[in-house]
Amino acid sequence: MMDDIRAVEWTGDGLRLIDQTVLPGRFEHLDARDVDTLVDAIRRLVVRGAPALGVAGAFGVAVAMLQAARQGWNVTERDAAIERIRSARPTAVNLAAGVDRVLPFVPKGVEAVVAEAQELLDEDIRGNRAIGRAGADWILARTGKRPLRVLTHCNAGALATAGWGTALGVVRELHGRGLVERVYADETRPLLQGSRLTAWELERAGVPYLVQADGAAASTILRGLVDVAVIGADRIAANGDTANKIGSVGVALACADAGIPFVVAAPWSTVDLATPSGGEIPIEERAAEEILAWGGAEVAPEGARGFNPAFDVTPARLVTALATETGVLEVSSGETPAAARP
Amino acid sequence: MMDDIRAVEWTGDGLRLIDQTVLPGRFEHLDARDVDTLVDAIRRLVVRGAPALGVAGAFGVAVAMLQAARQGWNVTERDAAIERIRSARPTAVNLAAGVDRVLPFVPKGVEAVVAEAQELLDEDIRGNRAIGRAGADWILARTGKRPLRVLTHCNAGALATAGWGTALGVVRELHGRGLVERVYADETRPLLQGSRLTAWELERAGVPYLVQADGAAASTILRGLVDVAVIGADRIAANGDTANKIGSVGVALACADAGIPFVVAAPWSTVDLATPSGGEIPIEERAAEEILAWGGAEVAPEGARGFNPAFDVTPARLVTALATETGVLEVSSGETPAAARP
Repeated sequence: MMDDIRAVEWTGDGLRLIDQTVLPGRFEHLDARDVDTLVDAIRRLVVRGAPALGVAGAFGVAVAMLQAARQGWNVTERDAAIERIRSARPTAVNLAAGVDRVLPFVPKGVEAVVAEAQELLDEDIRGNRAIGRAGADWILARTGKRPLRVLTHCNAGALATAGWGTALGVVRELHGRGLVERVYADETRPLLQGSRLTAWELERAGVPYLVQADGAAASTILRGLVDVAVIGADRIAANGDTANKIGSVGVALACADAGIPFVVAAPWSTVDLATPSGGEIPIEERAAEEILAWGGAEVAPEGARGFNPAFDVTPARLVTALATETGVLEVSSGETPAAARP
Repeated sequence: MMDDIRAVEWTGDGLRLIDQTVLPGRFEHLDARDVDTLVDAIRRLVVRGAPALGVAGAFGVAVAMLQAARQGWNVTERDAAIERIRSARPTAVNLAAGVDRVLPFVPKGVEAVVAEAQELLDEDIRGNRAIGRAGADWILARTGKRPLRVLTHCNAGALATAGWGTALGVVRELHGRGLVERVYADETRPLLQGSRLTAWELERAGVPYLVQADGAAASTILRGLVDVAVIGADRIAANGDTANKIGSVGVALACADAGIPFVVAAPWSTVDLATPSGGEIPIEERAAEEILAWGGAEVAPEGARGFNPAFDVTPARLVTALATETGVLEVSSGETPAAARP
């Protein structure tokens, strides 16, 4: 069930990443031994997914320290490099949190930073397992159905985390109990994390699935083909408003209309109590080219402009449940992360 | 304002179609002088859009008659060929209706059939103009806003009709009055009619627009960036349930949640009173390959299966208004096509 998918690994002198931009056609690693390579990898989504970014950020501090030693950077230069990693992408709170987690260990040296980053990685896997169990138990109790037909959007799997998955962790847990009939995987334009990454993980894990266009999600739900939708999160505000891959709120609206639960599966590290509500979450807007071209070929007319927000915000009223490593909050019923944080 | 876009034209010995599969990169025509070529063109979406399919179906009967004369077909063979055109795609009622419209003229000869098909084409353009005026007037009165920010999905433009457009006819009418601030054009996976065709039409017409992923539509609407959504239709049931390109019902759900109008712009020929409700509309399921591959390259892992419904059904309760050539029905307020049909 682990599939041995390690999106982020420390090799002793740098960070080894599964290059998620070339999956599923090729399974390749990218070794990041300097800050420029790592920041570029984060921006290009070689590594993506909030928890994986957290682990990458934590190890990234060690990358910066090793490079500082090699190149004779002073403290100001080193700290500026760490800050570049910390702010390489704006929406996921985990990236900055991963960096911040290991900063107190910097004075103790690289080995202490690496050890703390490794502890974060191990915690993430343990946490994901707990999220999967809590989410699966809640879904089975709420829906009363088995086997289940699950819809997911984007990739909140092993590739997006330290190695198990949040939304796909719930799916893996349910599949381990023999209770998954089928997963509908939204392809997730523009970068196709659903068809490229989620389908790849489900294929490896032997879970039955169908890939569909993002536009099909609402209809699939309204036609009664889905029992529950489960997604991950990039940042969750104190009131439960949830930022996740663009397209998520459309899934939530359809679930509300159809009367099926919309479940967010995420570790507490994704909750940002300093952000009161979704209105304060910065939404990364990415290059229009991701929409307007495909594999180098233009798919829109010359002169076209694109609008490419990478995330959307699902209001708490549409989040039926938030599955965390300490249990499930029924957010739309009023259980806010702010009140429940352990 | 007409842009002289003629998706379907009679050349004297056959049907000339703008090849919509190669836009916007190339502007090419395909001449269909035999039934196989025409049926293939309809299936491959060389010509698409409910009203354009109606006109193509009507002229298609003439194509079949000319081929029958050339090849010495008997009546049974000719009628089977006409039936193949009539049923080349199942969801749009206009294709069959266009064929049926000219069948009474078959005994009078090819010229009579062509004349009736040309009359259908001319009626379609006049009707589209009337739809555009009615829709624009209603939207301006309802929203009280000017200029307007309009969202549309798929392509219900000149390319989808005889030459003006239904949803884009409303946009053209508003733009002619100087009242369009911006159009958000959903790219419309899997075949990108939005980024390829709608953007191409808007570019030619000088209407400001942004192309976005289908998954962005709900968020763009919930963020307050849109004043009205306007789409076309492939078939409208007697109760107002509306089949249109997959992704439409998601737009409708977001409009309802945001409290902005969701407007369907369509000629009465798209209304099928023989279909009581959306549940009885056959939904074409297209090849999974449209989802799983891109320009010949696989984007999903080996072994992946896809789910590719081409249309969805927006229930009447979510259709704020239906703009027709005889005026606007407020469908979600109870004005059904069945009761209002002129």
